[in-house]
Parts: sequence; structure tokens; C-alpha cells
Amino acid sequence: MNKPLDQSAFQTPEVTTGSLIASRKVYTNPVDAPDLMVPHRAITLDPNAKEEDVRVYDTSGPYTDDAIEIDVEKGLPRPGLAWVMERGGVEEYEGRNLKFEDNGGAKGRHLAREFPTKHKPLRGLDGEMVTQYEFARAGIITKEMIYVAERENLGRHQAVPGAQARVNDGESFGASIPAFVTPEFVRSEIARGRAIIPKNINHPEVEPQIIGRNFLVKINANIGNSAVTSSVEEEVDKMVWATRWGADNVMDLSTGRNIHNTREWIIRNSSVPIGTVPMYQALEKVNGVAEDLTWEVFRDTLIEQAEQGVDYFTIHAGVRLAYVHLTAHRVTGIVSRGGSIMAKWCLSHHKESFLYTHFEDICDIMRTYDVSFSLGDGLRPGSIADANDRAQFAELETLGELTHIAWAKGCQVMIEGPGHVPMHKIKANMDKQLEVCNEAPFYTLGPLTTDIAPGYDHITSGIGAAMIGWFGTSMLCYVTPKEHLGLPNRDDVKVGVITYKLAAHAADLAKGHPAAQLRDDALSRARFDFRWEDQFNLSLDPETARAYHDETMPKDAHKVAHFCSMCGPKFCSMKITQDVRDYADGLSDNEKSSLEAVAAEGMAAMSDKFKEMGSQLYLDEKIVKAEEGA
Amino acid sequence: MNKPLDQSAFQTPEVTTGSLIASRKVYTNPVDAPDLMVPHRAITLDPNAKEEDVRVYDTSGPYTDDAIEIDVEKGLPRPGLAWVMERGGVEEYEGRNLKFEDNGGAKGRHLAREFPTKHKPLRGLDGEMVTQYEFARAGIITKEMIYVAERENLGRHQAVPGAQARVNDGESFGASIPAFVTPEFVRSEIARGRAIIPKNINHPEVEPQIIGRNFLVKINANIGNSAVTSSVEEEVDKMVWATRWGADNVMDLSTGRNIHNTREWIIRNSSVPIGTVPMYQALEKVNGVAEDLTWEVFRDTLIEQAEQGVDYFTIHAGVRLAYVHLTAHRVTGIVSRGGSIMAKWCLSHHKESFLYTHFEDICDIMRTYDVSFSLGDGLRPGSIADANDRAQFAELETLGELTHIAWAKGCQVMIEGPGHVPMHKIKANMDKQLEVCNEAPFYTLGPLTTDIAPGYDHITSGIGAAMIGWFGTSMLCYVTPKEHLGLPNRDDVKVGVITYKLAAHAADLAKGHPAAQLRDDALSRARFDFRWEDQFNLSLDPETARAYHDETMPKDAHKVAHFCSMCGPKFCSMKITQDVRDYADGLSDNEKSSLEAVAAEGMAAMSDKFKEMGSQLYLDEKIVKAEEGA
Repeated sequence: MNKPLDQSAFQTPEVTTGSLIASRKVYTNPVDAPDLMVPHRAITLDPNAKEEDVRVYDTSGPYTDDAIEIDVEKGLPRPGLAWVMERGGVEEYEGRNLKFEDNGGAKGRHLAREFPTKHKPLRGLDGEMVTQYEFARAGIITKEMIYVAERENLGRHQAVPGAQARVNDGESFGASIPAFVTPEFVRSEIARGRAIIPKNINHPEVEPQIIGRNFLVKINANIGNSAVTSSVEEEVDKMVWATRWGADNVMDLSTGRNIHNTREWIIRNSSVPIGTVPMYQALEKVNGVAEDLTWEVFRDTLIEQAEQGVDYFTIHAGVRLAYVHLTAHRVTGIVSRGGSIMAKWCLSHHKESFLYTHFEDICDIMRTYDVSFSLGDGLRPGSIADANDRAQFAELETLGELTHIAWAKGCQVMIEGPGHVPMHKIKANMDKQLEVCNEAPFYTLGPLTTDIAPGYDHITSGIGAAMIGWFGTSMLCYVTPKEHLGLPNRDDVKVGVITYKLAAHAADLAKGHPAAQLRDDALSRARFDFRWEDQFNLSLDPETARAYHDETMPKDAHKVAHFCSMCGPKFCSMKITQDVRDYADGLSDNEKSSLEAVAAEGMAAMSDKFKEMGSQLYLDEKIVKAEEGA
Repeated sequence: MNKPLDQSAFQTPEVTTGSLIASRKVYTNPVDAPDLMVPHRAITLDPNAKEEDVRVYDTSGPYTDDAIEIDVEKGLPRPGLAWVMERGGVEEYEGRNLKFEDNGGAKGRHLAREFPTKHKPLRGLDGEMVTQYEFARAGIITKEMIYVAERENLGRHQAVPGAQARVNDGESFGASIPAFVTPEFVRSEIARGRAIIPKNINHPEVEPQIIGRNFLVKINANIGNSAVTSSVEEEVDKMVWATRWGADNVMDLSTGRNIHNTREWIIRNSSVPIGTVPMYQALEKVNGVAEDLTWEVFRDTLIEQAEQGVDYFTIHAGVRLAYVHLTAHRVTGIVSRGGSIMAKWCLSHHKESFLYTHFEDICDIMRTYDVSFSLGDGLRPGSIADANDRAQFAELETLGELTHIAWAKGCQVMIEGPGHVPMHKIKANMDKQLEVCNEAPFYTLGPLTTDIAPGYDHITSGIGAAMIGWFGTSMLCYVTPKEHLGLPNRDDVKVGVITYKLAAHAADLAKGHPAAQLRDDALSRARFDFRWEDQFNLSLDPETARAYHDETMPKDAHKVAHFCSMCGPKFCSMKITQDVRDYADGLSDNEKSSLEAVAAEGMAAMSDKFKEMGSQLYLDEKIVKAEEGA
């Protein structure tokens, strides 16, 4: 299973390109920065329907722009470089030399080919502002802020009619979602610590995106090889594939050999932010022996990855020595890899975690490149039994403390959350996070609402994800059907992404996001009109929707059929509804009133009859009471 | 696509039999009626684990009992006949003659073969008690009540230790779930109208089951041919297949030809309650012309199906003339087939629905056979835009009125609910239903929480189903991946059932059902111990879990591996946790206190540092306030 890699055998990763059916890439230019080209996806509908194109949030990057030639060997265009350079306060430098251990000691034919182009890294200068948080606090609106505002509005240039009513229709649990997102609103949310734009100054390929409770809920897809399986080509392909279906960003959780080179190929070809858990690579550098980890090795890994352009780091600095024993009597102990590594380190040395004691040093490094924090929940529950326990919440309180430190140091911060949590305990997670982390964006893995469905954990967790997204979580880390069982393949990645896309969208609807329901309404109108192609094309996964339809009604004629295989032509309820509509349109107000009067009369008569009949039944109150008390 | 049927070509339906891996059927004999044999499924674990067998609720009937020979031509054993006969108050009679139109006019080679054995139907005698509701109100505990109590307890003969604590741990929203279910509790719940045992006296093949908010959440699987596709054999196979994976009951929604004969094969081979929508067959009898429907045709169909043994009827009696025009400006109008048929009838005749005006007559028929009501929501919303509108709630109020009439007539009743509802509008549905229907069991279809994911509507609806199940819904009607696109095949049925099984279980956990978490805990312990086989076997779908695992780690040796393909051997967090456990066990109380003191000290120091740093940042309160207000 451990595939030997061979330089000569190493292929250019093949990725999926081209637009989705009936979709095209459109760019809009924000009024505040007309040089920016903000991408959206426009879905074209049946011309007979006389409906406007439906614009949807587009995460797929240049890969779905038929006008851009993709060359994975060269990487993507780097528009973000200019935005950073024109602000100044940064310098180009030589950067760290690649070391033998960066690729887990892979050599010869086992070493994956390096990415062909080397870019010199940038870093912030001492005393200059580098991070989006620093600019926001200084009252400065960056190009990235203008970009994400335009993107969140889906290119609308004013609030949609009725938008405020829609916001009020939702239940936002204290979020403050505006009818229309302005760059100034973005700035204020970032300054408040309530949103982040994860974008390393060394990842100028990124199309900026905002993560925060007052914006569209985002999703993350995990990819990455392990010591046991998968290759560089597969991971680059998975990254592109995940974003094609809607992943807002991607975490590269690779372990084993070739970590450095795999990551470089991914970042240079990724238009979405890339997150990592630097601890995984640090552990490889000490041959997998947790107790051999040192601050120096970890620090070196942070710089290595920051220079490459990783946009956010999961840092498990909340796993403190004093909390480790709290997990001893859990059903599933510590299930976070990073958490368990640090727990083992703390125990071996009987010392406080170096991530905690060096937290300010970590902040300094991350600020220099504007790498965002994703404060890891190393003690998250791994089973229903362990949800919301003392270990979990003790760590969360520490993450709250660290959030404030990171802000004080000028860094952007989000907080990771569980895990496995039954439905009735989900909201307590959100409420406590909002409180102790002062509304810093929450980024949860599911949570899974039961443990009994391995093979279907995209669903057990999709339930929890939709709920916690509604309650205020800003980003949902996907779970694939392979969770707990194996590494996801391409199909699993797609199913995971679509599942989380629909969960995030359900959350946006429930929060009352002003533009969210536009797509539901367009699709439902298409469904009612039997515009089958429009229904497919407006769905999150047009290919699957079309394939399922075609299983029972394959002919082209069926695509315009005013019935479907579920009911056949006689029983079509939607067809009958059209008759109803014609009828209602013909009713005068008088006729409507008269109808209602008849209904009220019938209802009253029925009610009288019930009382009469019921009075017999309920005659003996004693019997009834005795029964009720039983 | 319309497959011609041929008597000679008609095969005996092939069904899946045999126990699931590592599972065996166990029967327990309730102390109150030792003649009853109540089935459960016992999952045997690795003997080295020294864990008891895990007992789970078993819906699969005799098909998974290796000791029972299955002969689909003969049908299942009929234990329930004795329970009915020993109570008395019923008579056997000749029953209605089969008519040409009962099978939609199918003849010759198009007519599906009749089920070989004819059983004479039973009916209640005038003035005698027939229904479970009548017995319950009279204070009589039936065999069926004893059976379901034993079944709900999974054969436990007393409350599990800590059960009360577990109930209190959940949030039941006013439900009163006992730590242990007694036959008397079952009786009182039925008498209160808060639960039903759907079981026609002519369906003695049924293993009784209880549906109510204070019991395990149940799920329903829809099957049925349509005018366009599928055959008798397929539907019988789907029924058995659905119950194998956990469907608590099955609705036969067949339309088109051969309805009667298809249903007979299904009922005679079904150990779960079967529901139908009699309107579908009535419409076939008038050649699909809604306006030609009459009370007489409908009445005849009710008797036909009641004699066959259908356990509950969906009756769309809440679709009143006066409500029809309320749907005219909906995005998706009327999406219920039964609802739209009745709307069309009301409009054509400009008369009140005959289901409404003849409601008491319907009650009389259904009481005679103990067919339970499933009061249909013909005006349920078919899109997010239409959720919780006036049409929907007007109908629900009428269903509340009808519930009281049906109770007064001695019938068992449950109420159908939506549909398409965004998350923030789900609870209002439940609350209103509990109020206007006086806690009669709610039986919902999903609801789907967004419209934009055709192909994944088992998931969009699984989210809503889990939530509304938690809030108090007693039964969840499954949705398959083919919803809105086509008729489900065997694989779709399985995915739909498993999805709803996990949603129902998530709801049981959240409600605080005392026995629900036992399975989660057993599976999580197996996961922590790397007992792969136990993890598979305890899951809802052992075959899929095993197959997914084997994709990356196919060898038998990997089934005992203390790592998996996600992390590889070095990174195994569960392995490290064992070290943590050993360490914690070695800590004295003094050492623990000392650890906590260090942590508190560190936290205080960190907090001071934050204040110090923060004070610089927040120096100019005016700037901060200006930003906050932005």
C-alpha cells in the first residue's frame, strides 16, 4: 500500500477543469477597488422561464474559468501579491533552506519531485502592520476586505428587496447579519475579532474569503496523505476537486514522507486558503517520538510552513499538563492527534506544554506572515459519552485566554470545536465558546450526533454541523463517509463537501442570511414548473441529480415531461396545483369571504359535535383522572 | 419501462434472509404474558473484550431468525390472531369480493398473480371493543401492550443503572420518558391518545410496535410501484429489505395497476405495520379523474384495504374547500398527491371535501378493524418558501379537530407533518401540533431543511428529522436520495432507512431515552480498543462500515491492528491515550492538586499578561467605541 514514488514516474497532477453545466464564471469589480476581479458562478436557466441567472458563491477558482489556461507545473496566478506589496511593510528574503527531514527523510525514488518554481518568501518588517487584524484595528480597509464584501454579496450592489424582512425571519441567536455587506462592515468585524480573512502574505494565489458568524457559513475539506496511503498527485487532485464542489478551504493533514513537497504543490495550485497542523510535520522530524519534540523543532516547522504560504495553523496550545489526567476516565480518551501528541509530551517531561509556554513566540511568527490561528481542541470529545466534560471545557477556557493574547499580538484567530456531541448538548458548546472567546470565529468538526453509524458519519455529523452553524459557528469542518474507517477517496471527498455545503446552507437560511433563500426559491420554482434541467443545474450536485433522474426516466423527452417517475402522469400534484391557481385567480373577494364563512361554520359544527361526543367519553371525571395519573 | 406482467412469468419474490453478522435473534417472554415471544437482536462482541452482548431493537421479523423457514408463497406466521380471538368481540365473515377495478383493470398477462392463500377477514362486532384505544380507555391491558413494553425495554427487566440520571441529562421538551416501560404505562399513553399501536385485526403477522413521544422514535419507509415503473416482486423485496435495516413500518404507496394483489403479497409477508393512502387506489378506480371520485368508491376502497389488513390509512380530511385558495400563491402550491386530488375534487364540485363531511363514517369503518388514522397533511409545504404558512396551519388546526372526533369514535390517531421547513421554523411545527392535536403522535416527512440538494435529500431531511424527533415527533418518514428525482431502488431504500435510523437514534439520545446511549457507548469502547469487528458489528450498517475499512486496509491482520489508515501507526491518538490512562492511575490525589495549582498559577500569569498587553491596545477608548459602532 505504501506506494514507492519515483522522480521519473512522478506525473503532473491531473485536475478537473471546466465549468459546471449551465454555469459560467462572472467577475465583478467592486466600486471601492475596480481593479479587483471578484469571481462568482452564474447559473443560466431555461430562456422560456424568463428568470434571471442565479448567482452563487464560487469557491472553484480559476479551474472553472474556461478562459484561463491551467498549468499545474506553473501554479495559479498570484494577484494577491500586488495587494500586499502596495501596502508595504514587508520584505522579500531568501528564506529557510529545505532540509532533509522536511520530507520525512524521503530520498531517491521515494522523494516526490519539488514544485518547479521557487518564490522567495515575504515577511513583515518589525513595527509595521502585516495582518488583516492590525489593519482593521487601525481603521484601514484592505483590498482583501473589499474583495470579501463583494464576494459575500454575490456581486449584488445593494440589498435585495425584502432583505431586512428575511433577516428578521431567521433566528440568529444574537448574530448581527446585515442586509448588505460593506467593506467597512468587514473591517469592523475583523477589528472586533469576530471574523478573519485567512491569507498568508506568501499565498497570493488565494481568492480572499471571510470567516465569521455574521457572514455565510464556510466549510473546510481535509485532505492529506498518511504514512500508509496516497500520493502527491492524489492530494492535489483532491484539493481541486473539493473546491470544485464548494470547499471554502482545505486542510492538508499529511503525515509520513514528502510532507513539504506535497504541500508546495498544493499551495501553489490552491485558490482557497490552506490550513495545516504543523505538529504533524514536527513529529515526523523527530521520527514520530512525541517526547523528542522541542520548541526549536516546532518553531522551525512554523517558519518552514509560513514561508510556503500556509494560511492558518492549528495550534493545540490549550492542552495543558494539568488537564491531561482529566481525560483518563473518558470512554475514548484523547482523540485529537495533536492533542494526544502534546499530552504525551507533557507527561513524558512532566512539564507544561511548550506550545503554551511559547505561545507569544508563536504569535510573533504567525503575525509576521499573517498566518491565522486555528486554536486546536486537542481535548475534544471522541464519543457521545465524553461530550461537554470537564477536560473539554477546561481547554476551551484556556483557548479563550489565548485568543486574547493572540489579538493583543496582532494575530487573526479562530477556535476549533468538537467532535462528538448529542443534539441537546450542542448549543452549550456554542454559547460557551462565544462567551470565553469573545465571539472569535468557531470552527467545528461536525459535531457527530451519535456514534453508531460509521460509514454514514458525514450524516451523523451533518446534523450537528447544520445546527451549530445556525447557532453561530462560522466554519464547518467536513466529515466524509470514511470517517473512523479509512482515508477518503475522491468520491468520499465530494460527498463530504456536498453534505457540508447543504448543512452550511441550511444554517444560512435559519440564521436569516438575506441572500441565502434566493437559490432555494429559484430551484423550487423550477421544480414546480417541471424545468428539470434548471432543477439539476441549480442543485449543489447537478451531475448526481441528473443521473438519479435518468435512472428511471432516461429519455430526453422526460427532461421536459410535466410529470416524473414517482407519481406518473395521472397523479401529478404539481399539475393539479396549476388548476388551483387558475381557480383562485378567478375568485372575487366576496367569494373568498363566503368560502371562509362556510369553513368557519363547518368548524363550529364539528366542534359542537366533538363536545357532545366527548362529553360522553369524559363523563366520569374520576376514571379519567385515575388514568391520567397512571 | 412499464414492464408487462405475466402470470406464468411471475416469480416468487426473492427476499433477503439470515441474520446480520455477529447477530442472533433472541426472544424474551414478558412476565405478564409468558406466552408472548418478543424479538430482539443480540450482537455478540469479541470474547476477549469481556463485554455483554448488546441488545438492539429488531424490526427485521422472522426473516433474520435462522430457525424459521421463510416461504413467501405462504406468508408469515400469524401469532396475533390468537390475541384478537381470545379477547373476543370480533367475527369472521366472507368479506368483499375482489373486483376488476381493484387491480386497476389489469387483466391477462398484465395481471399480477393473486396471493395463494385467502384468509377470511375479521371485523369488530357492534358495541364491542376492538381498538387498542378502546381497551386502553377501559383500563384493559392487551397482549399487544405487554409486547411493546417488553420490546421498548429491549428485554431489560428493570431500569438500567443510572437510567434516571440519563433521562434527566436529555432535554425532552415536556415529554415524560420513563426509565423503564411497563405495560400499564403503555396503556395509559394509548388511553391519553399520546401513543398508538398500529395493528389491524386482519394483520396478525405484525410484531406489535408503539408510536408515541414517550417511546423510541420510529421510522417509516415508503415503497410502492407507480404507473411508470417497478413490479410486485421488487416491492415485496424492498419491504423485507427495508425492515432488515431498521424500518419500523412501511407504507405501500403503489399506484397504477395491480395495486390490490401487490398489497396482499406485501401484507402477508410483513411483520411490520403497513400503511397506505387509500385515495391512490380510489383514484385508479375512477381512471385517474379526480372529479369522478365519490364517497362510495372511497368507502369501498377503505373496506377492501381494511379487510386485507392495512394497519393505518393516510386520510387527507383536513384539505377543506375553504383552504384551497390559500395555496394559490405558494412557490410550490400543493405537493401532496392526496392533498392535490382532494383540492381538485373540491374545486370541481365546489363542495366541501367528502373526506371531511364523511369523517365519522370513516371512523366507523376504521374502528371496526382497528385501522389507525394517519391524518394526512395535504397542504404541507413543498419548499422552504412555503413553510409554516396559513394554508399549512389552517389544515393542522382542522386535523386537531378531527383527532378529537376520531378519539371519540374509539380510533387510534397519528398526525402527519411536513415537508420542507428551514431549521428555525421546525420547532413551531412541533409546538403547534402538540397543542392542537393534544399530543397525538406526530409523524413527519423529514422535514427538508433546504431545497438546493436534490440527490442528497435524505440528508437535507435527516437534519430536520433528527431535530423534530428530538422536539417530540414520534415517527419519521424516510426520504431517500432519489426524492424529487425518481423511484428509489433497493440501494436507495437502504440508504434512506439507515439515515433515518441514525436520525431517530440521535433524537432518542437528545430526548434522554434511558437505554439509547448503551449502543453508542459499546461502539465507542470498541473503537477505543481497536476492536474493529465489534465496531462494524455494532454499527447500523456493518457491511458498509467493513467495506469502507477494507478499501484501504483489506488484510485480516488489519482487523486487529491497533491503528488505522487515517493516521498510521505513529500518530495513533488512541494508543497514546492508553499511556495517559496509565499515568493518571498512578497519580496520587496530592499530585493532582499540585498539578491544578500550577495550572491555576499559569492561567493567572497569562491573564495578567493579557491585561497588560490589552491595556495598550484598548488605550484609546474613543477609537475602540467608534469602531465597535461602525
